[in-house]
Amino acid sequence: MIELAQVVQVTDATLVGPPMSVRGMASLDQAGAQDLSFLMPGRRPETAAGALLLREQDRGDYAGVCLFVQDPYLAFAQASALFEPAWMAQPGIAPSAQVDPSAQLGEGVQLAAGVVIEAGVTIGAHTAIRPNTWIGPNCQIGAQCQIGNHVSMYPGCRVGDQGRIHSGAVIGADGFGFAPSDQGWVKIHQLGGVWIGDRVEIGANTTIDRGALDDTHIADGVKIDNQVMIAHNCRIGAGTAIAACVGMAGSTEIGANCTIGGAAGFTGHLSICDNVHIGAMTLVAGDIRQSGAYAGGVQGARPMRDWKRNMARFNQLDSLAQRLIALEKKINR
Amino acid sequence: MIELAQVVQVTDATLVGPPMSVRGMASLDQAGAQDLSFLMPGRRPETAAGALLLREQDRGDYAGVCLFVQDPYLAFAQASALFEPAWMAQPGIAPSAQVDPSAQLGEGVQLAAGVVIEAGVTIGAHTAIRPNTWIGPNCQIGAQCQIGNHVSMYPGCRVGDQGRIHSGAVIGADGFGFAPSDQGWVKIHQLGGVWIGDRVEIGANTTIDRGALDDTHIADGVKIDNQVMIAHNCRIGAGTAIAACVGMAGSTEIGANCTIGGAAGFTGHLSICDNVHIGAMTLVAGDIRQSGAYAGGVQGARPMRDWKRNMARFNQLDSLAQRLIALEKKINR
Amino acid sequence: MIELAQVVQVTDATLVGPPMSVRGMASLDQAGAQDLSFLMPGRRPETAAGALLLREQDRGDYAGVCLFVQDPYLAFAQASALFEPAWMAQPGIAPSAQVDPSAQLGEGVQLAAGVVIEAGVTIGAHTAIRPNTWIGPNCQIGAQCQIGNHVSMYPGCRVGDQGRIHSGAVIGADGFGFAPSDQGWVKIHQLGGVWIGDRVEIGANTTIDRGALDDTHIADGVKIDNQVMIAHNCRIGAGTAIAACVGMAGSTEIGANCTIGGAAGFTGHLSICDNVHIGAMTLVAGDIRQSGAYAGGVQGARPMRDWKRNMARFNQLDSLAQRLIALEKKINR
Repeated sequence: MIELAQVVQVTDATLVGPPMSVRGMASLDQAGAQDLSFLMPGRRPETAAGALLLREQDRGDYAGVCLFVQDPYLAFAQASALFEPAWMAQPGIAPSAQVDPSAQLGEGVQLAAGVVIEAGVTIGAHTAIRPNTWIGPNCQIGAQCQIGNHVSMYPGCRVGDQGRIHSGAVIGADGFGFAPSDQGWVKIHQLGGVWIGDRVEIGANTTIDRGALDDTHIADGVKIDNQVMIAHNCRIGAGTAIAACVGMAGSTEIGANCTIGGAAGFTGHLSICDNVHIGAMTLVAGDIRQSGAYAGGVQGARPMRDWKRNMARFNQLDSLAQRLIALEKKINR
Repeated sequence: MIELAQVVQVTDATLVGPPMSVRGMASLDQAGAQDLSFLMPGRRPETAAGALLLREQDRGDYAGVCLFVQDPYLAFAQASALFEPAWMAQPGIAPSAQVDPSAQLGEGVQLAAGVVIEAGVTIGAHTAIRPNTWIGPNCQIGAQCQIGNHVSMYPGCRVGDQGRIHSGAVIGADGFGFAPSDQGWVKIHQLGGVWIGDRVEIGANTTIDRGALDDTHIADGVKIDNQVMIAHNCRIGAGTAIAACVGMAGSTEIGANCTIGGAAGFTGHLSICDNVHIGAMTLVAGDIRQSGAYAGGVQGARPMRDWKRNMARFNQLDSLAQRLIALEKKINR
Repeated sequence: MIELAQVVQVTDATLVGPPMSVRGMASLDQAGAQDLSFLMPGRRPETAAGALLLREQDRGDYAGVCLFVQDPYLAFAQASALFEPAWMAQPGIAPSAQVDPSAQLGEGVQLAAGVVIEAGVTIGAHTAIRPNTWIGPNCQIGAQCQIGNHVSMYPGCRVGDQGRIHSGAVIGADGFGFAPSDQGWVKIHQLGGVWIGDRVEIGANTTIDRGALDDTHIADGVKIDNQVMIAHNCRIGAGTAIAACVGMAGSTEIGANCTIGGAAGFTGHLSICDNVHIGAMTLVAGDIRQSGAYAGGVQGARPMRDWKRNMARFNQLDSLAQRLIALEKKINR
């Protein structure tokens, strides 16, 4: 049970009602008497929640326990941390974890069953790693990180403080580099690493490849969803958020505070400036030098027959345009 | 070796020929005298197979051993189960599996090497789990499930009976939720779970995120291919089949008995009704309220030069359309 | 430290300068006095590198240590192998690796902690496997392979010599096959395997499904990037390179020496001939019978407002085309 006083503390809310405790958080229509909920600005406070985060001006005649805040969605985020179960089921270092004697573990590090820590690794204080994860030689992991199970960190990669890396993420696998030769592809062994800053979140089964020579670079505060692919030598600016299934070819540079929609692609060797917002499934194929919202591709599902008719015309577009131009000339002559 | 009598039993076939046994199943042109094969309706039974599942009317003058069925493709599926090797290499619970004393294991549960079962987990009878999989605290797994290796089940997730989950699947990682603030993104800790019904198949390296507050919900009989991404609070209706590489943003609701083509995307907060069929690589961006087949995007590969010409016109489409309209006005004046 | 004499040996270079050793490789502008770098043809040799791979004709008045080669990019690839750290942190077979007594291991095989080798497996000489990987019953792995951690090889799959498989790759999970029936989907148990040739590289979290009846087939020298999905019964020809996030539906056949751009898709049951090059995010939906470069889809990101206007016209394309044709008839009457 969480006391509302704790919620007040993390959200800076003003409590209107008696001291009480809640068991969990729930959405407005699912919440019961033991739950805390939140009200988006301008909505009506119709809920059975035991306590409600909301703006004072949205209260109306709501008689329940109120926690007044300026930004209820932000307050929801702040409060949510109180209700999350512990990252680790067991404290300490599991007997079946294998730690090389040369590794340096900070105070309070937790390693679950089957974790493998290779030589030369350093792990900061209070970082916790779930079962069967592999941390390769000479990796550096900061303090207060939460690392899932089946995570792979190839040799020499670096993660800063307060990172959260989800299960199945692979950090530092080889970039995809081959030189053509008469005898077929010759592998370019990937000699760079991956440098990841502080407060970075990396989703499940996401892959971030090591650089060919220099490092792949993920700045502070970057948030990356599941199944994202970041190729060798990409550079992602601070605070940028990348939705699921995005793919970036090598040496893509993304600025700070960008948002990238799901399944968008980048053809590589591009430079995207700060504060750019890219729509879902857009294939970015050139530099972007001005902040703003961008999109590409064809969005929306149509009944199959309609779509087929329009789709067929796509492959005639140039010829249709030329016929239009010819017609214009004829008329305007 | 499998007796044809067993095949008859699972397919409800009529055997025309002597009792015999077969070693395996094979496609029509690869099958030999020890193989069972099947004939799609209307095709000619030219094969060296030892026995053949087919419709009686397709027999012609074929002299080999026949198993008459109404639907040979369905019979192929039914018979295939007889030939699959056992899911587990070893029965019982491997010495290196780690099971929390509070976990409840049904009769005949099999756990391979390196499996980690945390506190409060329940596993139904005859469920089998391959090496190095992690089942987090308080997960519930039904009976007769087959769970691959390196599967991750985050705390509190639920899978029904007869599920099959392939290697590298991640169930219940955090949904991608952050609230913007003056200090950057503030994480919305994901407090919901994942609820998965009976007879659900989940492909390799697929990720299904836990809900923010309520559960992500996968109904009975849903089939999900590899590398699918299902975000927090999605709801998938019974019997829906989802091909590989599909991505769904948060709170997408898909009805029952839908089929979703490979690499299709959903922009989130959408509602798709029952019996909808979506083409490959379509980006669905609005609700669909009527059953039927839908598609979007541009399909097909063209010689590079042709494509570039048509592609360039896409970015002039609105201007071309307006010129056409202007021309129409001029002519029809 | 690597002697330049070793670089000369693998690149067939002509050394102009004194014998010396270098610590690593670096890009032109990052390289210091202890680094080897390389110069792309036609560029100017401005660098602080200790030694430089370049064409003799690009030397100009560069006074540093030179290694003359015909193809500097190829020489870079050849030299890079000298600088890569060892694949394995520890030689030999880790105590916590579990090897079935019936498995046959060649000379110098290295198995890291938590690796599970099931019955009937054969592994060739000097193959090395990183922690927690699972090799299922009756798999065959050739000599001098490097296999990452958390790799899954389902029963009966085969990899040739000198393969490199990255972390999280899943070889041989079930193809996605179900027959419809009155009682819902009936699983087609996948009875084929996966056959992978020599010198194949497979990226992190890539999935290659087993065949339904026959094998999925990856020929010699194929290079596959991360998060690629290859469905059951696909066949990939020798020397073909497949970039990240590509998805192929079942029974796609790709010829030899093709290159497939990132996130391209194939709708299945297609045949693509040799020496075909497919652009990023193209959805290939028909056979290709002639070598060359192909592309599809809509490429490029546009400011949101422009894009929306053009995008809206896509769904009017057929009607616009018909209006154009009608106008042409009227004018030319």
